[in-house]
Amino acid sequence: MELRRWPRKNDAESIRARQEVVRGLTDDGEVLWDELSPWERANEALTGVAVIPVSVIGPLPISLGQYELREPDGVVAETGRGLEDVFVPLAHTEGGLSASLYRGARAAAESGGFRTYVLHDRITRASCFVCKSAADAVELASWLDAELPSLQAWVAEQDDPSLSKRARLREVKTHVVGPMCHVLWRWTTGDAVGANMMTRNSYVLNMGYVLERAPVPIERSLLEGNMGGDKKPSFEYFQTGHGKTVIAECTLTDDAVRRVLRTTIDDLLELAWVGTHGAVASGMQSVAFTPASAIAAIFAATGQDIGMVGTSSMAHGAGRRVDGGLNVSIRLPGLEVATVGGGTTLPYARSWLRLMGCAGGGKVYRFAQIVAAATLALEISASAAMATAGSENFFRAHHERGGLR
Amino acid sequence: MELRRWPRKNDAESIRARQEVVRGLTDDGEVLWDELSPWERANEALTGVAVIPVSVIGPLPISLGQYELREPDGVVAETGRGLEDVFVPLAHTEGGLSASLYRGARAAAESGGFRTYVLHDRITRASCFVCKSAADAVELASWLDAELPSLQAWVAEQDDPSLSKRARLREVKTHVVGPMCHVLWRWTTGDAVGANMMTRNSYVLNMGYVLERAPVPIERSLLEGNMGGDKKPSFEYFQTGHGKTVIAECTLTDDAVRRVLRTTIDDLLELAWVGTHGAVASGMQSVAFTPASAIAAIFAATGQDIGMVGTSSMAHGAGRRVDGGLNVSIRLPGLEVATVGGGTTLPYARSWLRLMGCAGGGKVYRFAQIVAAATLALEISASAAMATAGSENFFRAHHERGGLR
Amino acid sequence: MELRRWPRKNDAESIRARQEVVRGLTDDGEVLWDELSPWERANEALTGVAVIPVSVIGPLPISLGQYELREPDGVVAETGRGLEDVFVPLAHTEGGLSASLYRGARAAAESGGFRTYVLHDRITRASCFVCKSAADAVELASWLDAELPSLQAWVAEQDDPSLSKRARLREVKTHVVGPMCHVLWRWTTGDAVGANMMTRNSYVLNMGYVLERAPVPIERSLLEGNMGGDKKPSFEYFQTGHGKTVIAECTLTDDAVRRVLRTTIDDLLELAWVGTHGAVASGMQSVAFTPASAIAAIFAATGQDIGMVGTSSMAHGAGRRVDGGLNVSIRLPGLEVATVGGGTTLPYARSWLRLMGCAGGGKVYRFAQIVAAATLALEISASAAMATAGSENFFRAHHERGGLR
Amino acid sequence: MELRRWPRKNDAESIRARQEVVRGLTDDGEVLWDELSPWERANEALTGVAVIPVSVIGPLPISLGQYELREPDGVVAETGRGLEDVFVPLAHTEGGLSASLYRGARAAAESGGFRTYVLHDRITRASCFVCKSAADAVELASWLDAELPSLQAWVAEQDDPSLSKRARLREVKTHVVGPMCHVLWRWTTGDAVGANMMTRNSYVLNMGYVLERAPVPIERSLLEGNMGGDKKPSFEYFQTGHGKTVIAECTLTDDAVRRVLRTTIDDLLELAWVGTHGAVASGMQSVAFTPASAIAAIFAATGQDIGMVGTSSMAHGAGRRVDGGLNVSIRLPGLEVATVGGGTTLPYARSWLRLMGCAGGGKVYRFAQIVAAATLALEISASAAMATAGSENFFRAHHERGGLR
Repeated sequence: MELRRWPRKNDAESIRARQEVVRGLTDDGEVLWDELSPWERANEALTGVAVIPVSVIGPLPISLGQYELREPDGVVAETGRGLEDVFVPLAHTEGGLSASLYRGARAAAESGGFRTYVLHDRITRASCFVCKSAADAVELASWLDAELPSLQAWVAEQDDPSLSKRARLREVKTHVVGPMCHVLWRWTTGDAVGANMMTRNSYVLNMGYVLERAPVPIERSLLEGNMGGDKKPSFEYFQTGHGKTVIAECTLTDDAVRRVLRTTIDDLLELAWVGTHGAVASGMQSVAFTPASAIAAIFAATGQDIGMVGTSSMAHGAGRRVDGGLNVSIRLPGLEVATVGGGTTLPYARSWLRLMGCAGGGKVYRFAQIVAAATLALEISASAAMATAGSENFFRAHHERGGLR
Repeated sequence: MELRRWPRKNDAESIRARQEVVRGLTDDGEVLWDELSPWERANEALTGVAVIPVSVIGPLPISLGQYELREPDGVVAETGRGLEDVFVPLAHTEGGLSASLYRGARAAAESGGFRTYVLHDRITRASCFVCKSAADAVELASWLDAELPSLQAWVAEQDDPSLSKRARLREVKTHVVGPMCHVLWRWTTGDAVGANMMTRNSYVLNMGYVLERAPVPIERSLLEGNMGGDKKPSFEYFQTGHGKTVIAECTLTDDAVRRVLRTTIDDLLELAWVGTHGAVASGMQSVAFTPASAIAAIFAATGQDIGMVGTSSMAHGAGRRVDGGLNVSIRLPGLEVATVGGGTTLPYARSWLRLMGCAGGGKVYRFAQIVAAATLALEISASAAMATAGSENFFRAHHERGGLR
Repeated sequence: MELRRWPRKNDAESIRARQEVVRGLTDDGEVLWDELSPWERANEALTGVAVIPVSVIGPLPISLGQYELREPDGVVAETGRGLEDVFVPLAHTEGGLSASLYRGARAAAESGGFRTYVLHDRITRASCFVCKSAADAVELASWLDAELPSLQAWVAEQDDPSLSKRARLREVKTHVVGPMCHVLWRWTTGDAVGANMMTRNSYVLNMGYVLERAPVPIERSLLEGNMGGDKKPSFEYFQTGHGKTVIAECTLTDDAVRRVLRTTIDDLLELAWVGTHGAVASGMQSVAFTPASAIAAIFAATGQDIGMVGTSSMAHGAGRRVDGGLNVSIRLPGLEVATVGGGTTLPYARSWLRLMGCAGGGKVYRFAQIVAAATLALEISASAAMATAGSENFFRAHHERGGLR
Repeated sequence: MELRRWPRKNDAESIRARQEVVRGLTDDGEVLWDELSPWERANEALTGVAVIPVSVIGPLPISLGQYELREPDGVVAETGRGLEDVFVPLAHTEGGLSASLYRGARAAAESGGFRTYVLHDRITRASCFVCKSAADAVELASWLDAELPSLQAWVAEQDDPSLSKRARLREVKTHVVGPMCHVLWRWTTGDAVGANMMTRNSYVLNMGYVLERAPVPIERSLLEGNMGGDKKPSFEYFQTGHGKTVIAECTLTDDAVRRVLRTTIDDLLELAWVGTHGAVASGMQSVAFTPASAIAAIFAATGQDIGMVGTSSMAHGAGRRVDGGLNVSIRLPGLEVATVGGGTTLPYARSWLRLMGCAGGGKVYRFAQIVAAATLALEISASAAMATAGSENFFRAHHERGGLR
């Protein structure tokens, strides 16, 4: 069959046609489900399914903040806080991961639980206007820098149906390089990740406002000039955030470190010191152990965009001895999570979101915090395993028992 | 239920016990399958499943190289090449993604298809030996730098059952920072990603060889000091590679660009110019559009480790006008793929691998190339959409038709 | 002589004492000038001098903007513009550098000259307050984020003589990592670089305001926690700027490229394409050829802090074919220049500043622009040399003339 | 005077002509020395001089290694070691710098002195061959990867006078991105930095060997494609080194920290922890305090290329509590220093080199180590100042004495 004749639609006949073509190529046809209609709008050229096993770990005790976006500045403001027990679903096939996260969660539970904070909420579409000179690009940038209130008012009053009302323009940041005037449109998008809604709105802004009123001629307008951070880690968003910026922390007691994690605070601190310098030495942006493992597992279970695992797992962890034990924390600057839209309302995903009390509107900050706490749980346990496994004492003990097995 | 009482085992009773606790919390119980035994070793605390819809796109015409690891140096050597038609499974819920990848594949197909190359194959575990001074760390590094043949011979002759014979030590690179002697153990691991096997082998090397024979006292031995690149993008592996380093390319004809992609080579080149400078301006390591979307979709379908989506989608794309059209390519330095081990032999995953002729031993270089070609297909189409969407002509055409819709 | 007995003062006797000790060790004593009093406050333990030869290149035609800091927001606003001819002093011993910069300047002169723009002006001291938990650090950050007007008012009303009135606090940016609340105090400092004045003021703010009024206990207050960008290139300041952010541009005519630079626009564009991708591939932050050469030469002549050469030469260059030729530009985000303070008023330095009309107050934006134009002049010429030197035609021509010499 | 008429030569008449034009523009003419002939080959369009005051600090006790390049592999091998007292010249106008470096040196002297190590010695010219496709670039890279012995032999047997015999090709590393085959030619260049000699040799290699014998057509050969690290910091050379890779260390005693540095080891460790995380948070490549200040001051005194201050001051510092005190160290991966060639044999520079016993051939590893020790001296003192200045105790003490002044 030629590529150009491949049926793309998701009507029953097209699905069957594709299934017939590929059936002999698959292992046993188990993937070619008859009933794919729940997903007919999620994925063109639907042909079958992937099934990933899900563990549930919990309950994790988390002190969760309640947050709301303060108007008109769009600051994330904490309005309350409560300790809750949460079960976390993990979809993956990495033996040991769930057990390790569970161990980290127990250590935290014995130390008073996790505390989580949402610091920031923005998503950015970075358009670029190419001018004929840097002079013009500089003038365009100056104009845009001062235009925010007008831009916001203009968007609000359009009744263009392609515009999303939920996406609200919060800030504009310009960055001129030669004749390029990059413009970072920063939006909030409610409980959705909002990639599509900010894209549509940015397009309308570019076309209907900027090109119409710009004080200089614009030779080319590009909707995204790669300063927007979509699915590619960058320093810009490691620092300023893409999606939700969240911190989870816990102060592990000496006792929990010793009994549950079977290591010591000193060992963990030595590991943190080595690991931080190792990250620097290898040009690693994040300082952390394995945040992507936890984030990917929750994303896969809950219908998140797993293409965003890389950006969402940018992480900055830190550990410090304090009164009462070892304070450990992780900062996830670009957690791109949703509780509405995308895959979140589809079968299976919606169930796993509901398990956490995170399905639907008004839940996204809660969900972001739970992801952060689960990520920290895994960091704690994985670090503990690394901190002791290689030590000389460990080695000697093994040797005395008769080998390295 | 307390966290410490949460049943962790995967016997039928434990699974049911967990399901009973969480059933009321999930949306409708559809996720809590009765039969989870196929995954009992893949994920502790098994409780249910996630189902992700899979589209199939194809056939993609790809000139695939045949490769083998040349001994004893472990260079990836091309031994043959053939043009094949391949169907690609995409597990995701991002509307438009499959259609876009399909469009890119058609443009490539009309331009003679994709060509793919495997350049390199290594995976690294970076241990760290902490000494009492930089002096000692420097001496240790000098010793290790010269010790490779002995290390290789020693590993080969051990009959420690915890050692993997499939993981072969290829190079040792040391990096001294203060009293830390980081040691990058570089392995090949056959058709598996090999994270576990290189971990075990590195541990045995550290304990049985380095600690026993080191010319200086070692205060602390850490199995991984964060120069190893596990699941966290870093410059080290953006350049030198983690897993398979693969390039896919295609020379798009003017005609395919115009008819299939509905843009022009000039527009694509302007976009590439802006996008490359935008990447630099935002501190983005990769230069590409949306490689993670394609990679995540194939990973989710085929039982790959989706925690590795971030590292595997590090990418360096380039476009250049050549005789015959526009040469476009993408370099994926750290594609961590497997056709054996991990989730690859589990139900569903094995079927989707088989669809591509990539199930089992001897298939990993083929699979890596298919992933790269599919990624390039999406890059082509996504770039084309960006290149024209914001142009002034596009805007004028829309305006003349009466609006922005 | 023991280190603890080394005379440190700059009275005549101490200077002579030091000179006597080292005279025999130096080559010929020419460095041990009798009269060092003009520099007695610039450098403790004065013993001699270094002399660096200075070339003068010019006149460079530059369209220079006049700028002022707009109050109260501290935006750099252009108030006028005029074309001037400027001579530039270059202190260095790199044969070919001055001739190359001269060639670039001629190409620009024949193309209508340079145009320069000042975009931004800020210098940052980044203090860090260590709290007992991330919770406290988050609360401290929220408080500081809202405190800017009070902080500004408080600084203004202090009559602490250690405070600099010229340094004005413009913005506060917080960044929480675990229990650390980093605080980026952003200042303008007039015509001085202002490192010392912002340091004193930040210290007073930390001690007199933050520690006194913070809503949470602060365990440790550090004046600089390494987010401030002092003398170490970083992405933060590559993007947001440290000192003056300046752009210089020029649109080279085809004729000037051919006759003066002896290359073609196509060759220059190919080089730019390769060089940009090479920068990305090597993890180079800047995209440019050799900005540090020009910047170091002007800094050494004019009493600037040459420890700031690395940060000041962060650069983002771009080239694009436009009507009339090749638009080339360079963005220097962190040019740390002064026309008052530091070494600028000392002998020799003040003369070379005066040569450019840049000595004293009100001249710093002028100076920053001249540095940028001179840097671009060198970029143009160095790029042209690279663009052709390796081409096949060049090689053939050489071969025909009988060798590679 | 027009730019094209500006006299460029360094004969006495041209020098006078330039001086006459600019005399009125300079402050007082003091810069326009009559006798510039010693520098006539160092700087075209010579017109005057810059004079920078030089302090001398010392003697610093340093355990200096003796090193030689081992043949044929070019490994830097230590052949001996001795403790010496060295005076260091610092050319700068930053009040406090010399005094601070002196304090750090005293603390080290009281702790047994510095120990320094040369780890590596390479300088790289990174050419780029642009092919018509990635396929060809991959083939070219495979060929080059295997060609090193032939390339070395070929260079050795050429009698092209433009070739430098002192520059020896050590390794070749290829890096393919699309149709670009970047080739990192890695050289050793004796006691010179060697930028010019490796450039000439690389050019001859490209033209005489690669273009003549390449297995695929090469469309364009560029001598430098920006992977070479010239004067622009990059991760590639932060890790693998450019010029000399050197480490200096010292184990500060508790007593020296308390009495000389007036702080505590705990305070220094807290600062190091905050500063390392601050560096990560701001995307700073180096982890250090102010290495560029020391390096720039020595470079300016000794005729080094001050355009290389940015690359030479890439630094990775680390501190760790050990038996006997605090082990502190700094790794300078890319110290581009020379004791022959460039400005090193010119008046003044040669004297200051001689002061350190570093003038002429066979001295470059000695010089590199002294620079590293002096840099560490400043790091120690600057860190100590930061570690205490902001502490609460410091603040209280000041308050009790009556204010912040």
